[in-house]
Formats: sequence, C-alpha cells, structure tokens
Amino acid sequence: MRKIGIPEIEDIALGAALLGAGGGGDPYVGKLVAIGAIQECGPVTLLDPEEVPDDALVVPIAMMGAPTVLVEKAIGGNEYKTLNDIVSTFYGKPIFALMPIEAGGVNSMLPIAAAARLGLPLVDCDGMGRAFPELQMVTFTIGGASATPMALVDEKGNSCIFRTITNKWTEEMARAVTMACGGSVSVSLFTCEGKFMKQYGVKEIVTRSERLGSAIRKVKEVTDKTPEEEFLSITEGFKLFKGKISDVRREVRAGFNFGKVMLDGIGDYKSQSAYVEFQNENLMAVVNDKILATTPDLICLVDTETFIPVPTDALKYGKRVMVVGLKCFPLWRTEEGLELVGPRYFGVDTDYIPLEERCKGGC
Amino acid sequence: MRKIGIPEIEDIALGAALLGAGGGGDPYVGKLVAIGAIQECGPVTLLDPEEVPDDALVVPIAMMGAPTVLVEKAIGGNEYKTLNDIVSTFYGKPIFALMPIEAGGVNSMLPIAAAARLGLPLVDCDGMGRAFPELQMVTFTIGGASATPMALVDEKGNSCIFRTITNKWTEEMARAVTMACGGSVSVSLFTCEGKFMKQYGVKEIVTRSERLGSAIRKVKEVTDKTPEEEFLSITEGFKLFKGKISDVRREVRAGFNFGKVMLDGIGDYKSQSAYVEFQNENLMAVVNDKILATTPDLICLVDTETFIPVPTDALKYGKRVMVVGLKCFPLWRTEEGLELVGPRYFGVDTDYIPLEERCKGGC
Repeated sequence: MRKIGIPEIEDIALGAALLGAGGGGDPYVGKLVAIGAIQECGPVTLLDPEEVPDDALVVPIAMMGAPTVLVEKAIGGNEYKTLNDIVSTFYGKPIFALMPIEAGGVNSMLPIAAAARLGLPLVDCDGMGRAFPELQMVTFTIGGASATPMALVDEKGNSCIFRTITNKWTEEMARAVTMACGGSVSVSLFTCEGKFMKQYGVKEIVTRSERLGSAIRKVKEVTDKTPEEEFLSITEGFKLFKGKISDVRREVRAGFNFGKVMLDGIGDYKSQSAYVEFQNENLMAVVNDKILATTPDLICLVDTETFIPVPTDALKYGKRVMVVGLKCFPLWRTEEGLELVGPRYFGVDTDYIPLEERCKGGC
Repeated sequence: MRKIGIPEIEDIALGAALLGAGGGGDPYVGKLVAIGAIQECGPVTLLDPEEVPDDALVVPIAMMGAPTVLVEKAIGGNEYKTLNDIVSTFYGKPIFALMPIEAGGVNSMLPIAAAARLGLPLVDCDGMGRAFPELQMVTFTIGGASATPMALVDEKGNSCIFRTITNKWTEEMARAVTMACGGSVSVSLFTCEGKFMKQYGVKEIVTRSERLGSAIRKVKEVTDKTPEEEFLSITEGFKLFKGKISDVRREVRAGFNFGKVMLDGIGDYKSQSAYVEFQNENLMAVVNDKILATTPDLICLVDTETFIPVPTDALKYGKRVMVVGLKCFPLWRTEEGLELVGPRYFGVDTDYIPLEERCKGGC
C-alpha cells in the first residue's frame, strides 16, 4: 500500500502511454483529469493485489469510444458518483476498490481520478498489460469472465448497466450507446471479486508504468550509453525501424480510429521504408515488406529525440519516430489469448509469431 | 379481479388495435404471442387498479422498435424472465404486477404474455389510453415521473437497465440499443409504485379494449342500425372520411415507420380526397385540404366491411377504409399533455383543436 500523488501521476501517464501501444488515449488529456481530481480530493491509495480480500468487489474503470473524441468532449467530475451508485445498487454491496482495465494515456489515468473522487483505493493490476480496442480483449475473458454487468455513464449523468450473453454483444450494445452519447463515455466492466482479479490480472501494471515513465524522463541523464540504448534497455524493447512519417491515412468508423502510418527511413534506415497499421492501437509493423511485429506484442512509436510515446491520434506528417516492439503479457500468447487478440482477429492475414523470433538475427 | 383467457384475448387484441390509432403493432402477431403464453402457462389475473397496494412495484411492459420488424423477428419466451431478474435485482424487491404502457395490437398483448409466463397479475391500466411512438409520451411524464430505471431485453437474452437525466435521453440511448439488437426489443419503463399508477394511469383500458373488440366483432348482429352506425355508436367515433387507398408512402428511419396514406373518396365521399400522415401512429387526417383531426386525438383507419382496424404497417393500395376520429384521454388535452404529444411536437404545423370542435357542423 502506498500513496499516488501528482509526481507519480506524471510518470505513470508517460509509462502507460508507451504501454498503450499507440492507443489508450492522449496522456496529456488523461493527466489533466487525474491531476484535477487529486488536487480537489487528495492522493489515492495504491493497493498491491494481495491486499484485496478474496470476496471484495473490484471495479475496473475506463473510457470507451474514439480517443480523438475525448480531446474535445471532456470528462466531468460526476460520472464516477453515478457509476458508483448504479454499480453498488446493482450488486447490492459497496465497491471495495477500483482498478484500470488497460494501460494507456487516458485509461491508466481515469481510474486514478475516479478513485480520488470516490475516496476508494486503486489496485495495482489491470486486464491487458497494454491497450486493446475492443472490450472483450482482456485476460479476464480467458479466465471465463463476462464483461457484464457492465455500467456506462456519460458526462451529462445518463447511465446504464448491461447484462449480455456474450462479450461480443456487450461490445455491440455498449458501442451503440457510446455513439448515442456523443462518442465517448466512462464505463466499468469485468467487475470481479478479489480472488479472480489476483488469478488472471496483469499485476503491478501501475508500478511498471511509473518506473518506465520515470526512466524515459531520465533517459538523457545516463552517461555510459546513448539515450537510445538506454531507452531500449529500460523498456527491453526491440528496435524495429526509425523514420520520418511520410503519410497517415485515417478513418473514424464504428467508434474506432482505423489507419495506417507510412515511414521513410532515416539514419541507419535510410532508403528503407516501413508502415504500421492500427485500430486505435498499433496492429502490425512491416519493414521493407517484412512483418516484424504483430498484435498482441506491443508496437510503440516514440519520438526519436525525447522518446516520448506518440499515440496513433497524434501521428503527423514529418514527425521522426522510432518503432519499438515490446513482448506482451505471456497469457496473450496462448491459444485462447491469440483467438481474442491475435492478428487474424483484426483481419491481418498472418499467423502470430513472437516478436523475438521475428527479430532473430537482427530486425 | 378476474381472469383473462384466450376468448378475452381475441377481443382485447381487436379493441386495442383500434385504440392503437394505426400503431401499437400488428394485432395478429400480438395475439399469437399472448395465446402461446396462456396455452403454456394458464390464464392471467387482471387486477383493478384499486386492488394494487400503494407501495407495490408495478412494471409496465412493452416492445420498442419498428412494428414492421416484429413481424419477422419474433418474441421468444425467455425475455420476461430476464426482465424480471434484472428489474427485481435493481430495485431490490419483487415485482408485484405488470401493466401495459400503451394500447395497441402488440403492446396490449405482450404484458399479458409476460404476466402469464412470470405468474404475475396484470393491472387494468396503461399510460396512454392509445399508442404513441416515443417512450416519454405517457401520462406518467405529466405526473413528473422518469421513464428510468428502464430495462431492455432482446430475444437472445441480452439486457440492460438505463438511468437518465431526461426521458429524451432515455429515448436516444434505448433507441440506439434497440437498433443494435436488430430493431425490436422488449422493455419495462416508468416502473412505479401503486399509488402513482392510480393517480396518473389511464384506468380500465384492458376492459375498454375488450368491450370495443367484442362490439366490433358483433357489429353486424344489430338489426335496428346499419353496421356502420353501430360501429360509430359503440366507439363514440367521428366519421371523417371513407375512401380507397390510392397511394402509401413509407420510410423506416431511426427506428420509426414514417409515412402518408392517400385516399380517393367512395360512397358519399365520391370525388373527394383525403390523406393521413403517420409516425408509427396516425398523426393528422386532412380531408379536402381541411384538417379534421390531429394527435393526440385518435385517428383510426378501419376496413369498410368488417370494421377491423388497419394498422399503418398494413396499409395497401386499393384497400377501402373508413377514417374515424376518437377523443383522447382528457389529460392529453392539457398544456403539459400537448407539449408532449401535440401536433407541433411531431412537426405538424397547426395548433391543437379538439376533434369535436373541428368536426362541428359535420365533418
């Protein structure tokens, strides 16, 4: 158990934005929401998963919708009170703690804001260890859990609770309401008891985000390595490409940001080319027509100078980025995991081959 | 307190289809659902509103969506169990009785089917005394009630409960889910306690439907009047026009059936023309360019031979119909009532003038 205040938030937001793999929302917006809540209501208690009793109600909190919408349609302060009311009424017992469902610039921050505003602790655990675009894409699904009862609230005070026969139906119904409410809403889903969370959750994700963020912030302070070497060392990342963005194709469709970013090589990669496809998060990195990484491994674009992660909604012509691959949480590499979040689910026509095998003998 | 079995259902469906004012769904489909449930689970107890305790939970049941969809996408048998579960869980107490929310071929029948399947009584009361296309259009809204917590279930077993800041938002959100679930779903809304239902509900609506249905069925048995005279006498209807359908323009948009039916006069109305505009229900009847009736008064089209009501989704070229106006429930004629369901709400550019005034000196 420890406290999270404003300094910790800066690092968590930065590290989580990297783990967002291009998605999970703009860390700047997320940070503002979390800092605002802490300034108003005080710091948040972060619990180790083992500190949560087996039968306690743990409620993951997230935003649902297109991250590009969130930039213009902000989050208010009362969503979480509405969410707390509707969830505790439905379960007939109080919420013990909140947790993030995914890592990302926004979705790592909102649970902190919610915890501050409700005076509830946050658990150091999530359901992805990265970000994914659809709600059934969590380790809890592998554990047989249902996303529902799932609660959804908008900034105006409207709310609903879904109970569905499959998580795909939850996705359909919740996405329809998200669009009706203007394209982004706050949700709680995969509400579970402490025991299940400890069994299937991705533990220490908040702490990992914070350490990564702190290390990225200090990447230029090391003297025995170049900042790039230091960055790859702290993230255990595979360097896939370095280039200048020559084109970004985007489409907001069915509540998602779809697109493809084209890169012209720079430095060691001069005269080479690469592209990355995304659906909120980066799905596949292709360098000189060779696939070097696919979902569920993390494909992250970072600024070549500052090493600050560049989410898919911030990609711009001319920006210089390094493409880095990170190994995903082991459970995603199982058959059940790949069925949920492997390349073929996203319409990418290739088998999953682990990042480190694809990069064997140098990427 | 009395029992409703299959013979009563035939008459209730027929009478309610007339009160549906063109909407409320196909009475044939509704009847099949109710008869199926009663054959399987036995007759239903109909309670007088005064028999419901003041603090008892009364749950109105309806279908939401385009009636044309319901003809192809039927209602299963398990919706009501799901609905009962989610509503009683949310309120933390058992449902005492069900009731219809509107009169109409389908929406008068589904609450009977639900009552049979759940073994619950039905209250002889609804919230409209006719049918209307949007969910906030009930007398309970005039009484200050919210449609929510509103429950929605589909035939597959998916469900949700909404809580909203206005009934317009309930309409937006529930309509979005209705479309995601295929265009028609079962809902409970304006759940209330006995006291409120007794104060604002339209009482004896089931009994009135049954009497009307029975009288329509026997309309040719009278000897001292023509069947048409008898029909107008039992319904207290104003004869507005009689004609052959020369054109029907339809559009299914945003979950509604919009349209306009054109009529060429027959008999006494030879060489005259009329049209009726509708949004699920008939909104306005115009004869020889003169408005003779508008919402919220009931505009009903019935077969000229059988006097069986013709819902808007059964209008067909060549069919001979009589257009009849019926006075609406008095609460609809108040300022608050007209704000909810008056002609201007539906984009019909005229003040509301009561049917009997418009028809003064002969329609």
